[in-house]
Amino acid sequence: MFYLLDILGTLAFAISGVLTAINKKMDLFGVFIIAFVTALGGGTLRDMLIGHTPVSWMRDLNYVYVIAAGFFIALIFRGRLSKLRKSLFLFDTIGLGVFTLVGLEKGLIAKLNPTVCIALGTMTACFGGVIRDILCNEIPVVFRKEIYATICILGGTVFFILMELEIPINVIYLVTSGVIIVVRLMAVYYKWALPAPYKY
Amino acid sequence: MFYLLDILGTLAFAISGVLTAINKKMDLFGVFIIAFVTALGGGTLRDMLIGHTPVSWMRDLNYVYVIAAGFFIALIFRGRLSKLRKSLFLFDTIGLGVFTLVGLEKGLIAKLNPTVCIALGTMTACFGGVIRDILCNEIPVVFRKEIYATICILGGTVFFILMELEIPINVIYLVTSGVIIVVRLMAVYYKWALPAPYKY
Amino acid sequence: MFYLLDILGTLAFAISGVLTAINKKMDLFGVFIIAFVTALGGGTLRDMLIGHTPVSWMRDLNYVYVIAAGFFIALIFRGRLSKLRKSLFLFDTIGLGVFTLVGLEKGLIAKLNPTVCIALGTMTACFGGVIRDILCNEIPVVFRKEIYATICILGGTVFFILMELEIPINVIYLVTSGVIIVVRLMAVYYKWALPAPYKY
Repeated sequence: MFYLLDILGTLAFAISGVLTAINKKMDLFGVFIIAFVTALGGGTLRDMLIGHTPVSWMRDLNYVYVIAAGFFIALIFRGRLSKLRKSLFLFDTIGLGVFTLVGLEKGLIAKLNPTVCIALGTMTACFGGVIRDILCNEIPVVFRKEIYATICILGGTVFFILMELEIPINVIYLVTSGVIIVVRLMAVYYKWALPAPYKY
Repeated sequence: MFYLLDILGTLAFAISGVLTAINKKMDLFGVFIIAFVTALGGGTLRDMLIGHTPVSWMRDLNYVYVIAAGFFIALIFRGRLSKLRKSLFLFDTIGLGVFTLVGLEKGLIAKLNPTVCIALGTMTACFGGVIRDILCNEIPVVFRKEIYATICILGGTVFFILMELEIPINVIYLVTSGVIIVVRLMAVYYKWALPAPYKY
Repeated sequence: MFYLLDILGTLAFAISGVLTAINKKMDLFGVFIIAFVTALGGGTLRDMLIGHTPVSWMRDLNYVYVIAAGFFIALIFRGRLSKLRKSLFLFDTIGLGVFTLVGLEKGLIAKLNPTVCIALGTMTACFGGVIRDILCNEIPVVFRKEIYATICILGGTVFFILMELEIPINVIYLVTSGVIIVVRLMAVYYKWALPAPYKY
């Protein structure tokens, strides 16, 4: 189940990468790489930082196949994906929740401090988008308006509070990803944004 | 022989890096770093991803010396290098073939899957240019028009087909790099490019 | 004492990161990340390159706390920091000296060649700024006008010359960081810059 959601999130991230790269007028190789880093860039950075090498996608090629599938799906249906925007957004939000959990888990396995684990969860979920934006020559959108990194930090905090309370791990997983998904949906619905401190 | 070609490729990549950095009006430090990452950035990223650390150039300083040589040569002869464009392009193409082989080999040594090995070969040959372009604040040229990444993937595929056929490794090396070099020359001559999927 | 200076340097780098990010109109998450990478990006890259993982800040959270402190201080006092520019510049310069020493030391511990150690020292001191500039979508300032990377290389060279002379390590530390700090102050005062080779 968890693995299935992870795959679904990867697919959604890859598709959103394809659409971004097409807007940047990239060729097929560029489009594929942008799909790849959008989906796997955050986890790859995480693995390099904690020394979990060869990085995860080199050990489990299913992620690469899912991205290849997302690449072809998005290319073929790119004219009709606008009608699926809501489904895509939902998958993307599921990805955000699941990717955060994957990062938290990898941090725990490496016996790292909760603060570092939360950073790894946020990185797994959000830094694929950061690398995508850098490769597209943009200031990362998550640094400017999107609030999702903050939501991942919130989710990670909930995770460790529940750990302290010795709640069963499956429940913690459900609640953490639930919090992330619900708050993300609310953030988009109510147009929440972090303030940008102005200069004075 | 192989090592010599590797050095020649590194030199060509470094020189092309110097010329790019001068166009961007960088100072001497910037020019050196751009020469360095153009030549060694792809291999460095590869080593970090597979956990082959300290990364290769820290273990074999000859690469660093070659880049320093390329740096000085390119600075001194920068006015006359335009006349050597064809030679430089040839060296660069040799570099593409040899770097791909180096990446494939490192993947095999790390016992990684053929798909991953091909990715590592392509990365070794092409991602120095990607990092160079990011540092120069451009969308990487290999994502937009240059076809050479696709040629490295083709070369890697040929490599593994020949491996399946149990052909002697030296022959495989020769054929693989030969394919990459010849197809690259043809691609430039006939102006082949990957299509960029348009929006509709 | 050394640790204290390291912390002071981290604080100054973080504060300068905050000010840069505010100028780029980033939100609070973006500002924090820019503060973080300005201070710790160079050391993080160094650790990944030499395979010292999990990277340093994951093992010693004090650096993360110092950056959080710098983040809040800079946000609260951002209107008044212009009056403290000289103090900040001094801390920043101390950071340059101390960070270079940290990088040199890590290279020695990993038994790397002096050339590589000097590269690691320079990277620790200067590449946080490089990553900051990339995330802010700028060509890194250290590649264009600031001379400080060259000063770190000079400091590293002094370090190894003194090592050859078998001078006590504490004296070497003092002299090396002293050289970096004094030359940096002189470079800014006299407006030294590396030449940018022009095209012809």
